[in-house]
Amino acid sequence: MPKANEYAIGVDLGGTCIKFGMVNQKGKIVEKTILPTKAEKGPKTVIKQIKKGIKELLQNKQYKVSGIGIGAPGVISTKKGTVENPPNFPGWGKIHLGSQVEKAFNIPVKVENDANAAAIGEMIFGSGTKLKSFIMITLGTGVGGGLIFNKKLFRGDSGGAGEIGHITIDYKGEPCNCGSIGCIEAYAGNNYFINRVKNKINEHPESKIWTLIDNDLDSLTPKIICEAANQHDEYAILLIINLGLLVGYSLANIVNVLDIPNVIVGGGVSGFGKLLFENIEKGIKERVLKSLVPKIKVYPAKLKNDAGVKGASALVFY
Amino acid sequence: MPKANEYAIGVDLGGTCIKFGMVNQKGKIVEKTILPTKAEKGPKTVIKQIKKGIKELLQNKQYKVSGIGIGAPGVISTKKGTVENPPNFPGWGKIHLGSQVEKAFNIPVKVENDANAAAIGEMIFGSGTKLKSFIMITLGTGVGGGLIFNKKLFRGDSGGAGEIGHITIDYKGEPCNCGSIGCIEAYAGNNYFINRVKNKINEHPESKIWTLIDNDLDSLTPKIICEAANQHDEYAILLIINLGLLVGYSLANIVNVLDIPNVIVGGGVSGFGKLLFENIEKGIKERVLKSLVPKIKVYPAKLKNDAGVKGASALVFY
Repeated sequence: MPKANEYAIGVDLGGTCIKFGMVNQKGKIVEKTILPTKAEKGPKTVIKQIKKGIKELLQNKQYKVSGIGIGAPGVISTKKGTVENPPNFPGWGKIHLGSQVEKAFNIPVKVENDANAAAIGEMIFGSGTKLKSFIMITLGTGVGGGLIFNKKLFRGDSGGAGEIGHITIDYKGEPCNCGSIGCIEAYAGNNYFINRVKNKINEHPESKIWTLIDNDLDSLTPKIICEAANQHDEYAILLIINLGLLVGYSLANIVNVLDIPNVIVGGGVSGFGKLLFENIEKGIKERVLKSLVPKIKVYPAKLKNDAGVKGASALVFY
Repeated sequence: MPKANEYAIGVDLGGTCIKFGMVNQKGKIVEKTILPTKAEKGPKTVIKQIKKGIKELLQNKQYKVSGIGIGAPGVISTKKGTVENPPNFPGWGKIHLGSQVEKAFNIPVKVENDANAAAIGEMIFGSGTKLKSFIMITLGTGVGGGLIFNKKLFRGDSGGAGEIGHITIDYKGEPCNCGSIGCIEAYAGNNYFINRVKNKINEHPESKIWTLIDNDLDSLTPKIICEAANQHDEYAILLIINLGLLVGYSLANIVNVLDIPNVIVGGGVSGFGKLLFENIEKGIKERVLKSLVPKIKVYPAKLKNDAGVKGASALVFY
């Protein structure tokens, strides 16, 4: 564990841009920068960009940096710090990202899957600081997650544990991009969700959503549905309730199998607020074993903006 | 770890009878007995029966007994050896079963949930001896399970982990006795399975099942469906294929979330043999994330008869 006055650099490696932050032990970002990933130019260029951003932050000598944490997509081997086949990163096979960055700066580097890093972030800085075990679910373009058990990340056989998005809620249901059928991601992932609304909204000509999108379905976003719900639009409210229940049904499966009753919900869609959280909790309670019902608790994630950078920095303090 | 020439007594506490076995370190039962549970007479009588059976086995002084393992239904606290509200045991609140038995014989006692004990049994004596991690599923009247991760039982927050039977495969599907909807138990549990067949078999007057049950639907059992399938009855074969696929779909959820690709299948229905196992594997592979497909392996459980007693004794050798 680093000393109280020490800092960590968090690196959030995304498909479009890389975010960097100098983070203190309370999870506050005291300095930050951002660079384009240039993923299309291959791993050498990406690693160059990563080093460039870190170098920039290290120029301010007032912070004593005890480590660098990198949250990356794909399959990660934390022991060796390798990143394997991150989706949307052409030309990557298996890259020893950790050792390359460590060599460049002579500072310890920890690499972890971005969804796992988000869960560790909530454990160290966020809604999970007082929880022994919890299930983290992130609702965004995709639906991801991470499992914390006894204050430790549960990684599974090869670091891939926590793939909550690909829990089936209906084996005859909606097709998912992963190749399976009825995954919760195929209902709650942003694009799937919006497309389902687009296909149904004609049955609701009275909805305020129509005014908010100026009758242009292409401009429909989760944010607009949220706005309509805030204006008491019945259809929008129903959409959020249903979304919450379905997410709850998927989570009930893991709560049953793992006997972990605490759930932290993060990601963009969690902007739907109280209505969403209440219905996620309702969905879990409706479907979980009776003995678990009184223990169920759903918490909103605390790390919102820069959750990626903070989660990555938490790898150092973990 | 007991010495090689030491034995464990395994106690399998069931709703109707209690099975006892003197088990060596290779999982061989060298002596056994059985007593009625008398559950309806309350916990005092049940504990008397447990002690009676153990006493009987201990009369043969040639075996050096290093411990007693008890597999029991309900919620178990392994630390204190308490058994809480086992279903079908009237009058039990929370009973310190472990300490009561330990006191009576002055031999260390370990108590564990019966499904968890079965998983430990497979790890110590069965198909899991060479696996680091696996998911155990038991297909019987109920559908149960246990999770072994890194050679350790994963118990969850309160020892209830492994409730695979209550994974939903269709949130709008068949009602389950647990109160939820679409649980795999509501498809694969013996009675549910047989009832579904009873409701559909009229559409299959050509099936050999009719001859085997002498046109009496009340005598339909999984064993008869197995027999019909062995006689190449197309409908019976289809039933087993579908059962396997559905079980596979439910398991795909846990494989995805836990990143544990090894599955051991036990319980009565596993008598359906190769056809069932192949289709469980097929179902998992159809629905699991692509990166996991090549790793998936489904093993039949090795402990068949007396799996309960052997699993309970394994608690001592674990």
